[in-house]
This record gives sequence, C-alpha cells and structure tokens, in this order.
Amino acid sequence: MATQGQFITCKAAVAWEANKPLVIEDVQVAPPQAGEVRVKILFTALCHTDAYTWSGKDPEGLFPCILGHEAAGIVESVGEGVTEVQPGDHVIPCYQAECRECKLCKSGKTNLCGKVRAATGVGIMMNDRKTRFSIKGKPIYHFMGTSTFSQYTVVHDVSVAKIDPTAPLEKVCLLGCGVPTGLGAVWNTAKVEAGSIVAIFGLGTIGLAVAEGAKAAGASRIIGIDIDRKKFDRAKDFGVTEFVNPKEHDKPIQQLLMDLTDGGVDYSFECIGNVSVMRAALECCHKGWGTSVIVGVAASGQEISTRPFQLVTGRVWKGTAFGGFKSRSQVPLLVDKYLKKEIKIDEYITHRRTLAEMNEAFDLLHEGSCLRCVLDMQVQG
Amino acid sequence: MATQGQFITCKAAVAWEANKPLVIEDVQVAPPQAGEVRVKILFTALCHTDAYTWSGKDPEGLFPCILGHEAAGIVESVGEGVTEVQPGDHVIPCYQAECRECKLCKSGKTNLCGKVRAATGVGIMMNDRKTRFSIKGKPIYHFMGTSTFSQYTVVHDVSVAKIDPTAPLEKVCLLGCGVPTGLGAVWNTAKVEAGSIVAIFGLGTIGLAVAEGAKAAGASRIIGIDIDRKKFDRAKDFGVTEFVNPKEHDKPIQQLLMDLTDGGVDYSFECIGNVSVMRAALECCHKGWGTSVIVGVAASGQEISTRPFQLVTGRVWKGTAFGGFKSRSQVPLLVDKYLKKEIKIDEYITHRRTLAEMNEAFDLLHEGSCLRCVLDMQVQG
Ligand SMILES: NC(=O)c1ccc[n+]([C@@H]2O[C@H](COP(=O)([O-])OP(=O)(O)OC[C@H]3O[C@@H](n4cnc5c(N)ncnc54)[C@H](O)[C@@H]3O)[C@@H](O)[C@H]2O)c1
Ligand SMILES: NC(=O)c1ccc[n+]([C@@H]2O[C@H](COP(=O)([O-])OP(=O)(O)OC[C@H]3O[C@@H](n4cnc5c(N)ncnc54)[C@H](O)[C@@H]3O)[C@@H](O)[C@H]2O)c1
Ligand SMILES: [Zn+2]
Ligand SMILES: [Zn+2]
Ligand SMILES: [Zn+2]
Ligand SMILES: [Zn+2]
Repeated sequence: MATQGQFITCKAAVAWEANKPLVIEDVQVAPPQAGEVRVKILFTALCHTDAYTWSGKDPEGLFPCILGHEAAGIVESVGEGVTEVQPGDHVIPCYQAECRECKLCKSGKTNLCGKVRAATGVGIMMNDRKTRFSIKGKPIYHFMGTSTFSQYTVVHDVSVAKIDPTAPLEKVCLLGCGVPTGLGAVWNTAKVEAGSIVAIFGLGTIGLAVAEGAKAAGASRIIGIDIDRKKFDRAKDFGVTEFVNPKEHDKPIQQLLMDLTDGGVDYSFECIGNVSVMRAALECCHKGWGTSVIVGVAASGQEISTRPFQLVTGRVWKGTAFGGFKSRSQVPLLVDKYLKKEIKIDEYITHRRTLAEMNEAFDLLHEGSCLRCVLDMQVQG
Repeated sequence: MATQGQFITCKAAVAWEANKPLVIEDVQVAPPQAGEVRVKILFTALCHTDAYTWSGKDPEGLFPCILGHEAAGIVESVGEGVTEVQPGDHVIPCYQAECRECKLCKSGKTNLCGKVRAATGVGIMMNDRKTRFSIKGKPIYHFMGTSTFSQYTVVHDVSVAKIDPTAPLEKVCLLGCGVPTGLGAVWNTAKVEAGSIVAIFGLGTIGLAVAEGAKAAGASRIIGIDIDRKKFDRAKDFGVTEFVNPKEHDKPIQQLLMDLTDGGVDYSFECIGNVSVMRAALECCHKGWGTSVIVGVAASGQEISTRPFQLVTGRVWKGTAFGGFKSRSQVPLLVDKYLKKEIKIDEYITHRRTLAEMNEAFDLLHEGSCLRCVLDMQVQG
C-alpha cells in the first residue's frame, strides 16, 4: 500500500486543553513501530470516560491529546513482529490490552493486562516511549492506548481485536467499551443465576447493557433505578421489569429496595459513578449473599464507605473493568453474538454524527435522550 | 431427672452494668419451653465479643445479662417439640442458629439464619419473649442466644449442635466461636487455593486459625502482620511463614506487602476489628483477583472506606460470620476433625481458670500472651 511506512496526514479531533472545545486538526500519524498496528478508524462512539478526561477532572489526563476508545476500523499497516493482524483486517481497538504473557493474563483470574499499561497510562507508545501523533512536529498524547477520535491511530498489537469482516463497523464499534462492560458485569463478574433479583442503578448505556445481560441470565426481577424518568420507557425493551425513581421517595433507596424485595436484592450494579449510590447499591443487597458490582467510574479522589457489618453479614463488594471480558479473545465472540442476533447493539445507538460534529456529539452525551452517538470518521463536514 | 421441669438455682457470672466487674450470683434458670433446650455448661472460653459488650461500647448490649458464647456442655432437659437432642447429649451452643427452614437457611448460600434473631438480638427467648434467667424474680438478659457464663443456660433448639460424646468438652468448647471462624474464613468464605499468597492481619486466636486453615489449603506463603512481636514465635506453629510488624516500617503496610509479593497478595484477612487495617487489608490485595475478608468486628458506628478504583480493578471485599459454617450441621464435623487430629484446638488454650475467676479471665484477654482462657464452670472457688 502507498501509505505503508509513511507518515499519514489525516483529520483528528484534538483536545488541546481541558474543557475547551475539541478542534478538528490535520494530524501526522507516524508509521507503526515494532509490535504496533496502524488502524484506519471508520466509526467511533463517545463514552463518559472521554468526557471525564476532557473535562479536566481526571488528574491523569494529559493534553494535548486525542481522545476516543469505542471504535472500529481496518488495519492499514503493521510494524515489525506483528503476526496476529495484517493490513485489511477489520478490528476493534481495545483499551484493555491482552498480551497472554504477563502475570495478569496468565493468571486465568482477570481480564486486566499489565503489558502496555505503563505506556498507555501516560499517553505514549511502549517501543520508544513517544507518541505517534504530531501536529507540525508537536507531539500529541495518546489516550487509553486507543485514541479513536482520529481517522488513523496507532495501537499496540496487544490492544486490537480482529473481528469478522462481515460485521457492520458502524454498529460493532460499540463493542469497544460500553455494551461489553454491562453484559460482562453480569456474566463474568457477578455471574447472575436464573431466578435472581437484580437492581441496576443508572439506566444509561451501561445500565441497559446490564439489564440485557441480566435478562439473558434469566433474572426474575430487574429493578431499574434512575433519577431521570425519561429512561424508564426505553429500559423496558432491555429487560427492566420495575422502576424506582429515588426522587419520588422519602426513604433511603437501600431501605426502599429491601422492602420491595423481602430483604434485599441478589445482585446490584452501580452504573453511574456516584460514590453514595455505590454505598446504597451494596446496602440494598440481601444479607448472606447479595453481591454488588461497581461499574461506574467515580471522580478522582472520591471514596466509598460502609459499615464493615454489611460485609461481615455476607454481602460482597466487587467491581468490573470492561466487564471482565478478555479483549482480544472475547470481543470477536461478542461480534459473532451480535451477528447471530444474540445481543443488541442497534438499540443503543440513538444518534449519528460525523467527525466534524464532534463537539455537538459531546453535548449530546449529557442529554438524557442520548445513549450512544456514533461518528462517521471518514465523512468530513 | 430430678431437675426436669423445675427451676434450677446455680452459679453464673452476671454483668450487672457495663464495665463493672462481673459478679458470681445464684441465678434461677427456668425450665426450657417449647423449642428450647436447657444445657449444663461444663466449659466456656472467653471471646472478644463478650468483652466488647461488657465494655458498654456495643449499643445493642443489654444489662443485666449473662455473657458467654464459646462453650460446651450436656443437655439437662428439653422443652416440648424438641426432637434433635435429648438429656445427656453432649452439645456446643451456637450463637449462629441453623433452623433449616428460613429463607436464609434454605438459600444454600449462607450460614446465617433468621429464625430466632429477633429474640436473641434483644436478649430474650422467642417463645414468650421473656428471659429464662432471674435473680430473686428480676429478669437477667440472655446474650447471643447462648449465655454460657452460667452453670445452666437455656438456648433455642436451633442453636445447639450435638457432638460426639467422646470429645473432651474442655477442648471442643473452642469450636463455639473463634477457631471455626478463622478456619471457615479461609475454607468457606475466601476458598483459598493451593499455592496462594495469604496475608493475615492480627495474630490472635482468629488470625492463627486463619493461618492453620491457609496452611491446610496449601497456601505457599502465609504472611502474619501484628504490632505485637510476641505473637510471632507462636504463629510459626500455626503455619505463618513470614512476619511483618507495621511499627518497624515507614511505608504504609499495604505498599510494603505489595512490594514483598510482586504486586499484592491473593487473599487477606483482617482479624483485629480495626477499620483502617481493613482498608489496608483490601489494598494489599493483588489487582485483578485479590480477595480480602473482614473477620474482625469493628466498634459500632465505624466505617470502612477505600477508592472504588480498588474494586473496579478487580479486588473483592467480603466478610464472614462464624467462618461461614452452618452451626448445627458443621460444628459436629469440626469436632470429628479434631478427634482425627486434622485441626488443632489444644494449642489455642493458653490459660485455664474456674467460673469464680471470671474477672481475672477477662483481664487475661487483654494480655498479649493469652489466646483462649477456658473456664471450668463446675468448679467453684
Ligand atoms: N468499569 C468500566 O469498565 C466502565 C466502562 C465504561 C463506562 N463506565 C462508567 O459507567 C458509568 C455509566 O456510563 P453510561 O455511559 O451508562 O452513563 P450515562 O450518563 O449514560 O448513564 C448514567 C445514568 O445514571 C443516571 N443517574 C445519575 N445520577 C443518578 C442517581 N443519583 N441515582 C440514580 N440514577 C442516576 C442518569 O440519569 C443516567 O441515566 C460511567 O461512570 C462510566 O464512566 C465504566
Ligand atoms: N466475624 C466473626 O464471626 C468473628 C468471630 C469471632 C471473633 N471475631 C473478631 O475477630 C477479631 C480478632 O479476635 P481475636 O480473638 O483473635 O483477638 P485478639 O485480640 O486475640 O487478636 C488481635 C491481634 O491483633 C493485633 N493487632 C491489634 N492492632 C493491630 C494493628 N493495628 N495491626 C496489626 N495487628 C494488630 C493484636 O496484637 C492481637 O495479636 C475480634 O475483632 C473479634 O471480635 C469475629
Ligand atoms: Zn468507555
Ligand atoms: Zn497481559
Ligand atoms: Zn466469639
Ligand atoms: Zn434458618
């Protein structure tokens, strides 16, 4: 290919500073080095983690950077030693790497991987500890090892999942973050059994994917909790059977749920990122076995707390990252499940925009009606 | 028997007021009512929960009461409808009941039981919501449904485990609380696998029983943490392989343990009752899978806290009550294990006293050299 081994100049949405509108820039994308893959991004969605870092509240956020981590594309070229993907492969970049070699990968107990974390955590590539993005020679940081808000990005080979080429990329891009997180929280982290009573705090994309996962697992009651009434109608389609708006009750929400469920729920999921809701989610669990899974990401420095008696009497407090899915191994299987209509994706896509409309897409994130907004990255203007 | 159906007058150590020496009194013990069992207590040990309630710090403590919950004895008589034990049976009173009928018992997921809790929690018997103890007509409250600091006590039939009559009661009384709690925390709650790295915070009876359980489970490293150096020598005999005294280090203990173990332990156990140690015990766990079990009982109103990120990155926070053992079903099996020399008991008994020396025994509890002090309840003076 003409571009292989060359710098590519393309459009990307650059976050120059925290909390300032992103700017669509011409960015130079260096060729992939050893163990790296350059991907042409066709579609990307926005997730709250992008907005969180953009807002400046993330103390580990580095600027200028290119955000984005929920996307799909096609491999443009690969660096030395890359064997598992080749140009033309359809891929989903994965912010959770999977090297299959590190202590974490080999443990068989977690989907976290330690291989490239020290580089991706500080916005650079592992090989030379530099960035592959620059604008007129000025380096632009990577983000979460993915930086999908660019028409071309460079990722580590351990951070890219090769998928069925017949899958529609404008849909399966969602399998880069939100949908697997919710499904996996139920299937991998909590391991919800048939007949369980489930409570879901927050009915955004993550909460709805939890509902979908719980329904598939055979949960008998799926109680959705949200402070925004608008969320309730849509949530029925995802499996939620009952709704509670904490604002409409005087009782603490944990007490209310205990009363509604004869002593508490079997599983609860916090899908908001609010530490006091995390506490309520634990405390509404049934004594003896109730398990609460933290999915939401709280602002930096915030802490969860409870009385230890809650745990001594048998409740379990857990959390999940990317729903416990091993990214390179399992994202392709989720794509297959979508193709077999075993999991939803289309229903989570409420808006579509183009790269040029990035800032509008960010605004949409904070609107109650938006679940996921998918950007067509190759259409300009 | 002569005493059946009659009041029995016997000696008991009565806690008239919080934090005042117990007084050996002549107490009247009413005959057992329907579903109740009167037990002649031969041996009782002291546990920190007795001391905690006695101290007045337990807001649910009721006075005057008869404390004690780690004991063994012989059934003197049974009330109407009691079929599973009869006079002469050797038994261990169980502060965790097991009715086999309630939602909790039938769940198959917990050893907690809901049957008599509403009565035992407020120092009375379920049948008539009164006490069976009185002194000159003045009622004396029960404690934890056991009240073993009396030569005779009355317990619910769901709160008594029938054991092998050949077992030495002066030893197996310890199976009423501390030893099973530690063993079960490892075997039932954490389910430690062979090869695991284990950290134990606090090397009293509970911590040592955790060590014993971890050794039996095949843990490869068992790290004991205590602020009292004296604990270390003895702990070797229970399986502890390494020692850390937090006072001898400047680093936070969680960081120190992470460094010692290439990223954290697989399982940790808090066996002290200190909420900041509970946090350290969670945070010293390995990312991705480390599980921390709270065994210690914190003072009322105290809270545990951490950053939710600790859980989102795969640590699990749990707790245990009576080590997850189902009392009536499993205490007899632990007695059998002791008889087959599969678990230790003798080694936890550092002191022996008589009922008359009860206050001295309480003082011993706070002495570093004491694990369990067993009182001979039938010897007077
Ligand atoms: N652990 C992971 O791997 C992972 C992955 C992706 C996203 N996340 C996190 O999951 C969370 C949810 O993401 P999302 O995209 O679904 O967000 P979202 O904003 O679309 O949904 C959050 C929902 O919570 C509701 N809500 C807000 N405050 C509430 C309260 N006090 N009580 C009840 N409901 C309340 C909102 O009305 C909204 O419907 C975010 O914190 C995100 O960062 C975690
Ligand atoms: N969950 C349950 O079912 C259950 C049952 C029985 C007892 N318990 C609780 O378990 C705890 C331990 O009981 P025990 O009988 O072994 O008590 P113990 O007092 O004999 O042992 C506690 C040990 O912790 C050490 N210690 C104190 N502060 C420390 C610190 N900051 N760092 C490190 N070590 C420290 C002490 O030196 C001592 O060796 C108590 O809180 C008790 O109430 C719980
Ligand atoms: Zn995301
Ligand atoms: Zn790895
Ligand atoms: Zn005890
Ligand atoms: Zn029961």
